[in-house]
Amino acid sequence: MTAVTAATAATAATEEAAYEPTGRTVPTRGRHKARYDRETVHAILDDAYLCHLGFVRDGAPVVLPTLYARVGESLYIHGSTGSRPLRGAATADPGLPVCVTVTHVDGLVLAKSAFHHSINYRSVVVHGTAYDVTDEEEQRLALDALVDQVVPGRAADSRPANAKELAATAVIRVDLAEVSAKVRTGGPNDEAEDLALPYWSGVVPVARGYGAPVPAEGLAAGTATPDYLAAL
Amino acid sequence: MTAVTAATAATAATEEAAYEPTGRTVPTRGRHKARYDRETVHAILDDAYLCHLGFVRDGAPVVLPTLYARVGESLYIHGSTGSRPLRGAATADPGLPVCVTVTHVDGLVLAKSAFHHSINYRSVVVHGTAYDVTDEEEQRLALDALVDQVVPGRAADSRPANAKELAATAVIRVDLAEVSAKVRTGGPNDEAEDLALPYWSGVVPVARGYGAPVPAEGLAAGTATPDYLAAL
Repeated sequence: MTAVTAATAATAATEEAAYEPTGRTVPTRGRHKARYDRETVHAILDDAYLCHLGFVRDGAPVVLPTLYARVGESLYIHGSTGSRPLRGAATADPGLPVCVTVTHVDGLVLAKSAFHHSINYRSVVVHGTAYDVTDEEEQRLALDALVDQVVPGRAADSRPANAKELAATAVIRVDLAEVSAKVRTGGPNDEAEDLALPYWSGVVPVARGYGAPVPAEGLAAGTATPDYLAAL
Repeated sequence: MTAVTAATAATAATEEAAYEPTGRTVPTRGRHKARYDRETVHAILDDAYLCHLGFVRDGAPVVLPTLYARVGESLYIHGSTGSRPLRGAATADPGLPVCVTVTHVDGLVLAKSAFHHSINYRSVVVHGTAYDVTDEEEQRLALDALVDQVVPGRAADSRPANAKELAATAVIRVDLAEVSAKVRTGGPNDEAEDLALPYWSGVVPVARGYGAPVPAEGLAAGTATPDYLAAL
């Protein structure tokens, strides 16, 4: 088990307004779309709750969808103590190399030419090491943050984990140090000679939508729908 | 360059109604959520266009968001010939080990206890090898499919790639052989002793929403918005 407290190298780095680009966070293509400022990175991370967690098992890549929360300069991910990546982080020394990627699709970009079709998106790619969180206080902070990342305000309005649940839950932490964002906005970039073609061109906006909350079977009649759900 | 035609091992396998589970497609946790039937896997893949592509570079995992298309028992992914994974697939023999993951979020599951909070989702994880597509006919089929995966019907209503654009585009193919889906539906699974707690519980539906199409700057006045956009 590798225990590292939350206040590590990331603390000093937060003094800087941007993450330091590295060999693997500078894209080979589309460099004008790359962003390293913390404000952009944090905003993209805070607007989502699902990430795709990549790790290497037996030399091959594995990518799994999972929930995460950002707390300061760290991401927290949780799962069963029996799950593969979390077991890996718990047993690897010094932690498990991971890549955590978060992507929002904001629009479909339709150009005159098939070649210039694209999507508008915001993404963050985090390269780092997942450490097992063994401190109970940090575990509880992470679990609250994971609930609040999905529905802000919900953690305080549910029963906290008991000792048995805490013991069954693994929490890993990935510090934000080697991080980049990519952002595409705007309309199609058509070739000048294609502009007169008769095809429609432009952007179809895409957004996440929430439906009306559906109460659980057996929920006591008269249980009010919380205000934090209306805020979604 | 590794060229493999599309009609390979996957052809025989399509006779079967389900993908054969393997050591890495049987989850260690939540096995009841696992699905291997082609109908479920194809439906999940066909309802999306963004995947998270994982590969290994210098021993470390990399996860990048990218568009894909499903054609029969293959996924196609494209990019610049200068992009890292596509360059990797082009130069590796026999191809580049990849993991392709597609995830839909369908609902936020709010339980009485923080522990039983979850999301309803549908995901597909494909383990396989990415091969460089070098046959021009297969490249064109893939590029059409990539446009139509995002907006069905659009490929025929745009200018096809010319020779220069084809030369600048790399296409890779991952055959669907080692594949699994995971699906969670329904309400929260609360502990019996928690049901009387006063917290709201239930599901908040989540869905992708499209806004009204925004014509490109300079689009000729009177260019009709195509019917296939209304169908989104």
